[in-house]
Amino acid sequence: MIVQYDGRTFSGWQRQENAVTIQQILEEKLKVLLKQKVDCVASGRTDAGVSAYFQPVHFECGKSIEREKFLRSINGLLPDEIKVLSVIESEIHARFSAKKKTYVYKMYVSHIDLPLYSSALRVEPDLDFKLMKKFCRLLIGKHDFLGFRASGGVNETTVRTIYSAKLVRDGVNLTFYITGDGFLYKMVRNIVGTMLEIGKHKLNFDEIKATLFKTFKAKHTAKPENLFLLSVDYN
Amino acid sequence: MIVQYDGRTFSGWQRQENAVTIQQILEEKLKVLLKQKVDCVASGRTDAGVSAYFQPVHFECGKSIEREKFLRSINGLLPDEIKVLSVIESEIHARFSAKKKTYVYKMYVSHIDLPLYSSALRVEPDLDFKLMKKFCRLLIGKHDFLGFRASGGVNETTVRTIYSAKLVRDGVNLTFYITGDGFLYKMVRNIVGTMLEIGKHKLNFDEIKATLFKTFKAKHTAKPENLFLLSVDYN
Repeated sequence: MIVQYDGRTFSGWQRQENAVTIQQILEEKLKVLLKQKVDCVASGRTDAGVSAYFQPVHFECGKSIEREKFLRSINGLLPDEIKVLSVIESEIHARFSAKKKTYVYKMYVSHIDLPLYSSALRVEPDLDFKLMKKFCRLLIGKHDFLGFRASGGVNETTVRTIYSAKLVRDGVNLTFYITGDGFLYKMVRNIVGTMLEIGKHKLNFDEIKATLFKTFKAKHTAKPENLFLLSVDYN
Repeated sequence: MIVQYDGRTFSGWQRQENAVTIQQILEEKLKVLLKQKVDCVASGRTDAGVSAYFQPVHFECGKSIEREKFLRSINGLLPDEIKVLSVIESEIHARFSAKKKTYVYKMYVSHIDLPLYSSALRVEPDLDFKLMKKFCRLLIGKHDFLGFRASGGVNETTVRTIYSAKLVRDGVNLTFYITGDGFLYKMVRNIVGTMLEIGKHKLNFDEIKATLFKTFKAKHTAKPENLFLLSVDYN
């Protein structure tokens, strides 16, 4: 399935005790529909508050599914914040077969909080956008991103390849796009947090550049409500 | 002042009894700040539920205003849904000096309600977009828009000039832009409602074309929550 969700009011993707998560709601509604318990596997977990435009999710079930009817039924059961956009029968593993992921972090440039931009993070107009773009270029390539992993991350290797990282300004909109083969726990938010500190000249760019994939430890985490999983590529 | 507001939870611009409106809140907060009662005049009234990116508003007061301080203070008093973006001292009458207004109506094209597009109206992918674009072209020019005015409108003349009307598709986003020297009560929403019926082939395009500025009477009003005042031009 491709699932879209507004994650702002949920405790992230992964099922957990005493919290409402996307996985839990999906599995609950699938159980009602399929009359059997299924486990949903997403391309990756998204943190509490993070949303997804296209989140691939797979589950195994003994039944054959009639696509149109399945979509109508499951979406009728799901809340407004979570919808299944499409479904196919496939052997693709949503997580292990994923090759590339793209995240987008939404910001807007203004001195004043803008009522019609509330799904984006307000940043001040005097940020050093040139330096932030230089930082984006540093990220591209295969690096050890240990310094951008939040404590609590459990990945065995912290090496990741970033294919693209760019900051796009369009009117007041400021959007950060990053594509990689995978991301560590809170890695995107730590990258954005660090980028914003560089833009404010509160972190020294040359120093960061020198220590980036060695001793640097990100201390600024951008808030999750403005982060969106945009797409996942498979072979 | 240039004011931005998310109008979805308000009863429109105009002050009225027993309803919360943008004008009422602005005047209330200005009274606190300026310690005098002022009347706010907008470039035009927006209906209940309609939002504005840039709504020009003027008021008269005997005091000179320090811009930066005024903005900080008034925005500190205003709720998240209403903010003043800028302020200048000027003799411009927000309503009578307005020459052009641009409205935008936000839609998206999908069979399924999309959680991350909730500020736009969902329309079905099988709409006849070509015919809808032909309808847009018909609107351009100086015409009597009586058939697009909702009952309750009180304008003396119903002749308006439309400078531009276009429908832009970008991915799933479908956006209608219309610029004119002014708009009658619910005129934009009636234009969008009619355009959607044409797109569904529920109204006959040739018939509408023949009667458009003569005997045609719009019967479909698109809902207000997806309509935004985008800009107002002065000399």
